[in-house]
Amino acid sequence: MQRKRFNTMSCPIARGLDRVGEWWSMLILRDAFAGMTRFDQFEKSLGIAPAMLTRRLKALVENGLLTKQRYASHPPRDEYRLTARGEDFRPVLLALLAWGNAHFTPEGPQMQIIDAASGEVAEPVLVDARSGRKLQAPDFKLAHGPAATAAMRARLAGGGGLLGWPGVGA
Amino acid sequence: MQRKRFNTMSCPIARGLDRVGEWWSMLILRDAFAGMTRFDQFEKSLGIAPAMLTRRLKALVENGLLTKQRYASHPPRDEYRLTARGEDFRPVLLALLAWGNAHFTPEGPQMQIIDAASGEVAEPVLVDARSGRKLQAPDFKLAHGPAATAAMRARLAGGGGLLGWPGVGA
Repeated sequence: MQRKRFNTMSCPIARGLDRVGEWWSMLILRDAFAGMTRFDQFEKSLGIAPAMLTRRLKALVENGLLTKQRYASHPPRDEYRLTARGEDFRPVLLALLAWGNAHFTPEGPQMQIIDAASGEVAEPVLVDARSGRKLQAPDFKLAHGPAATAAMRARLAGGGGLLGWPGVGA
Repeated sequence: MQRKRFNTMSCPIARGLDRVGEWWSMLILRDAFAGMTRFDQFEKSLGIAPAMLTRRLKALVENGLLTKQRYASHPPRDEYRLTARGEDFRPVLLALLAWGNAHFTPEGPQMQIIDAASGEVAEPVLVDARSGRKLQAPDFKLAHGPAATAAMRARLAGGGGLLGWPGVGA
């Protein structure tokens, strides 16, 4: 089925999702962060059909998240490695990890982020790097950037609810 | 097409994606954060086919991210609102926003997170709430939790690459 693409939308969330929003793509990236580089490693880890894995890897390479390099000629074998753009995706996966742990592990966490020295379990939270303050209303809000279209300016005129729309919560 | 579900996998990222990883779902959540509650609002904002929107809203309700409530009887109309579980998804969208802005806005940012008082553009970063330190290697690592299966323990024995696998970067 041909999907409607998100890459021509103005919103950076939509544009990002256009590159990683297919079923399987983010789990392939997760495995790339876990050090996997070879087709058979991804295939075994995910239990994904080979044809599907081929398509997803191809798209991640085309979108600049992975590089593909030949590491053996007989038979031909390629390895896939995260680019800087792929590396930058880490916070999204960590935020997903925290959300999944909070809501979908009735048996208790199986995987968690810990302080390497103390072993204490970390509490992931998104803050502003300079001020250290949590990214939430009313301290922060969404606003249009310099390149915003008229439609984007209109959309954000109300304050931008992603950080706490009035009545929706902060 | 019937997809392979991720909800029986051990990994919290996979379990989370099982609930939000369908094409369109995260953009519907984005719009819910922006204050939209009605079917026609989502439809107009996304340009999504009504049958598809119906399926996605139903799944988000079934998975506990949105509630559905009747607000008019003649004709019958429902509104959709974020639950606490849906609200908790905010950091994932903000991390996606930051990544999309960094990599897919050649024209410059159209939408950004700003300090509501100073107007300064925020720099989203994921930290440990208690110590304030950035969640990256070598300070932090992935480890198995108390409920981990043997397979998960084996997978994480090498340190867990999500926070910087040796050779992949930090």
